[in-house]
Amino acid sequence: MDLDFNKTGGMIPAVVQDVTTGRVLMVGFMNEEAFQKTVATGLTTFYSRSRNKLWTKGESSGHTLVVKSIQTDCDKDCVLVQVEAQGPGVCHEGYQSCFFRTLEEGEWKITEAQTYDPKAVY
Amino acid sequence: MDLDFNKTGGMIPAVVQDVTTGRVLMVGFMNEEAFQKTVATGLTTFYSRSRNKLWTKGESSGHTLVVKSIQTDCDKDCVLVQVEAQGPGVCHEGYQSCFFRTLEEGEWKITEAQTYDPKAVY
Repeated sequence: MDLDFNKTGGMIPAVVQDVTTGRVLMVGFMNEEAFQKTVATGLTTFYSRSRNKLWTKGESSGHTLVVKSIQTDCDKDCVLVQVEAQGPGVCHEGYQSCFFRTLEEGEWKITEAQTYDPKAVY
Repeated sequence: MDLDFNKTGGMIPAVVQDVTTGRVLMVGFMNEEAFQKTVATGLTTFYSRSRNKLWTKGESSGHTLVVKSIQTDCDKDCVLVQVEAQGPGVCHEGYQSCFFRTLEEGEWKITEAQTYDPKAVY
């Protein structure tokens, strides 16, 4: 399961995609420990750059990302995690996907509706 | 078009997704200049960490990634670029997507066929 963790301070980007809809839900970073924990537990786990620790997505919200398959790219410095997302949304701001802003005429516009109330969850 | 380029050495991950099929084709990094050039030209442009310069995907192969829309995430530290990919494949190793390896029983297995001969292009 060799991956190249050397390029970005011991971390690689991990793209999370909904295995059913194909929607890209979020992008996080994994260090080797986070990657190994993801594989071992089947729950997508990242390394938080702001908190400097591992975090399994959903550990506080319940909105876990259950791993269905993992792919890596030609350079083995990135992973694509196909998941079944539990709960109404992945984003801590209340959206299904963290990518809820679209560039329109030079500005980031919110282009979809919230799927849950983040205040009720976080 | 403010994005947070501070976390990873002035660069953010850029996920490239086929706008028609939803397939994730590749992940690169953009610095602010690469992002601005992507927006201005409509051709997906990255910052190469190994060559320390901008590169517009397809400049040598012709396999450009024509931008259809760009989204950013809640933290504005990542972009998702929806593209129309020109040519038979994005990966310099001859595959439609750079994510041609899948984790199976603890090993990375090549799980799809090449779509072109990279020796004929690069």
